[in-house]
Amino acid sequence: MSGDGSDIVVMKFGGTSVAGAEQIKRAAARIVAAREAGNRVVAVLSARGKTTDQLVEQAHEISDRPVAREMDMLLSTGERISCALAAMAIHDMGHEAISLTGSQAGIVTDSSHTKARIIDVRADRISEALQQDRIVLVAGFQGVSTDSRDVTTLGRGGSDTTAVALAAALRASVCEIYTDVSGVYSADPRIVADAHKLDRVSFEEMLEMSASGAGVLQLRSVEYARNHGVRIHCRSSFEDGPGTLVVSEEETMENPFVTAVTHSDSEARVTLTGLRDEPGVAGRVFGALADANVNVDVIIQNEPVGDDKLADLSFTVDRADLTTAKDTIAALGDVSLEVLTDEQIGKVSIVGAGMRSHPGVAAKVFQVLGEERINIEMISTSPIKISCVIAADRVSDAVNILHKAFDLGEDAIQPEDPTGPGHRPTVAG
Amino acid sequence: MSGDGSDIVVMKFGGTSVAGAEQIKRAAARIVAAREAGNRVVAVLSARGKTTDQLVEQAHEISDRPVAREMDMLLSTGERISCALAAMAIHDMGHEAISLTGSQAGIVTDSSHTKARIIDVRADRISEALQQDRIVLVAGFQGVSTDSRDVTTLGRGGSDTTAVALAAALRASVCEIYTDVSGVYSADPRIVADAHKLDRVSFEEMLEMSASGAGVLQLRSVEYARNHGVRIHCRSSFEDGPGTLVVSEEETMENPFVTAVTHSDSEARVTLTGLRDEPGVAGRVFGALADANVNVDVIIQNEPVGDDKLADLSFTVDRADLTTAKDTIAALGDVSLEVLTDEQIGKVSIVGAGMRSHPGVAAKVFQVLGEERINIEMISTSPIKISCVIAADRVSDAVNILHKAFDLGEDAIQPEDPTGPGHRPTVAG
Repeated sequence: MSGDGSDIVVMKFGGTSVAGAEQIKRAAARIVAAREAGNRVVAVLSARGKTTDQLVEQAHEISDRPVAREMDMLLSTGERISCALAAMAIHDMGHEAISLTGSQAGIVTDSSHTKARIIDVRADRISEALQQDRIVLVAGFQGVSTDSRDVTTLGRGGSDTTAVALAAALRASVCEIYTDVSGVYSADPRIVADAHKLDRVSFEEMLEMSASGAGVLQLRSVEYARNHGVRIHCRSSFEDGPGTLVVSEEETMENPFVTAVTHSDSEARVTLTGLRDEPGVAGRVFGALADANVNVDVIIQNEPVGDDKLADLSFTVDRADLTTAKDTIAALGDVSLEVLTDEQIGKVSIVGAGMRSHPGVAAKVFQVLGEERINIEMISTSPIKISCVIAADRVSDAVNILHKAFDLGEDAIQPEDPTGPGHRPTVAG
Repeated sequence: MSGDGSDIVVMKFGGTSVAGAEQIKRAAARIVAAREAGNRVVAVLSARGKTTDQLVEQAHEISDRPVAREMDMLLSTGERISCALAAMAIHDMGHEAISLTGSQAGIVTDSSHTKARIIDVRADRISEALQQDRIVLVAGFQGVSTDSRDVTTLGRGGSDTTAVALAAALRASVCEIYTDVSGVYSADPRIVADAHKLDRVSFEEMLEMSASGAGVLQLRSVEYARNHGVRIHCRSSFEDGPGTLVVSEEETMENPFVTAVTHSDSEARVTLTGLRDEPGVAGRVFGALADANVNVDVIIQNEPVGDDKLADLSFTVDRADLTTAKDTIAALGDVSLEVLTDEQIGKVSIVGAGMRSHPGVAAKVFQVLGEERINIEMISTSPIKISCVIAADRVSDAVNILHKAFDLGEDAIQPEDPTGPGHRPTVAG
């Protein structure tokens, strides 16, 4: 692809990594170093620090419900600014650089404005620029819709997905995601003092971690990476040294049965009481939510009770989607007696690929939380994850107690008993 | 073009007209009113108030000499923000609106980054949107280069040119330029208390006025309008009532021999002393300046003197171009003994289509300035303009004394003597 056989590296820098002039110059220096090490470099940048928030604020000064197509036109400017500035910095370091919009970079999406999905990557222009010995800077988070040729955005954290999609299309040797943390941790280090950085996690584990609150990588980007076999290296833009590799399960050296504790405190719960117990009612509810682009997480439906067979249905959504969720349900008419919401809930999850063969893990989670008198309001599981919805103000306690109970701390000893404390992965630091 | 035979109106709103949320809503209301009056509306917007300055500042935090291609990528975001926000406001007023980048709007330019020229307008997408009964918002000041498909910008005030070019391509009935002043005045009202608004000026007069400092319309846009016969209506975005029509000379009702006094205080003079008096030296100097996109205004070359036939060559440029001009000349090697510069100069001009047939005007200008002891350092004339380069700190005096001498004031009486006070055009207010 690169013409001279040298490796293509895709590097992605997040908002804090390009926030000020100094940060942009530092990112530029990293990009130049990768080029000078003999790689062909494509760098994907996010909008600077507060830029997106400021643009959103400008939109809300104009309209309570800004039309989505125009929101995309507005927000897509942030990443372009970052790329243009980084290209200037790289030029001053003596290298040719060229910034491309998502559209120019060939990121083709569907027309789902503000939450578009990448459907094709036509990277000809990037390949051409790489052939011309240029460093290519691509505005993350955005694309162009295939049918209407409109600017689209990929939704929150979409720059990660841009980077992974480009890495896949260009057959890059690695997709390096630079952030303000030095890798993926066994728990959020802001909450758990002895959380440790993980050397490697599998795509499956990372998927569960991203889905359950680990903010370091966006879920969709991990999904994309797994589907296309793109190795991700998640690392710090402020420190040197290795971060965390996200790779296929065969590449991970061991299968700890618990790898990490993740959490989220930006959840909201919606409960529909007195739901008519007819075939298709739940389908209508969740179909409408899906059409409105609301991601539903944990779902619980009670056994219908009473003569009229009315049931209660609860589910959780991202708190930012709560208004949309309520509006969507209201638009369905009389599917239920009442719609209740709770914005004071959070979620704690434990994730580990080794959990598949160790059924004792769930019991231990419930027991540990019970001992701490933390009430579990909803539960959802996958073969490699257990999530518990709890009160928002107990999330921090729950994360700490689980991290300790599964012995994930920096200096913990590795036990062998699978239903005892967790098997700890090898850690560099 | 519009499909249903209704008139197409192009409206252009400048930076102060979209500076804050309130101004954007006001501009949106004007656009909607034009639509509801039965027109098809295309609106061209500039970047909000200080946006462009802020982006330039961000670039200079990164680089002393930002590479031009990336400067264009950076600066073009400002107008896109304005358009997206205005589209949101129009949606809330119940109309369909769509914002387009310069590229999407079909503004095709050459590759002269930061000062690109429009070479084609492919307005298919605009026409299509108008057919669909949409209001179209176009990001001013920008286009896409025909060869490299890069984002380009048209240089300072380029949004006026975007508007006029679209009006020409769409055969619009009028191109309305909305600004923070209510029209074209007989002199800058901030300097001359009794300056009056002109009802109509000819393209030729407006060209001379724009070239000599009247900031209300950009020179290139007037040139484009003249060449394509686009009627411009220059008016206030904050007040109702008519502004100034810029039309072909046949449409002006009278030919005042002096229409307006204009001035500029952002000039700089470059003097090359001891210029070798050889054929082609001046050609090399001005050829190089043209290649560097420096617009040269007044030029004077002294008679070569002495045995070695060395001459002095002086010319004026926009003060913002002075560094580029000096660098360009330095790069030519030893064309002269010394390069002197003066940044403390300004220019005062009188403009009037009727001047062509009235040779006494120049004499009167020199006499009036002489009586005020204002030293004229350089002179340049055209059939309908006389410009004098003077000390920057005397510009304001010169404008006032000439405005008075040619009797251009609001309540002045119209004399008949062509070498006496000026013939005043009919004024509304």
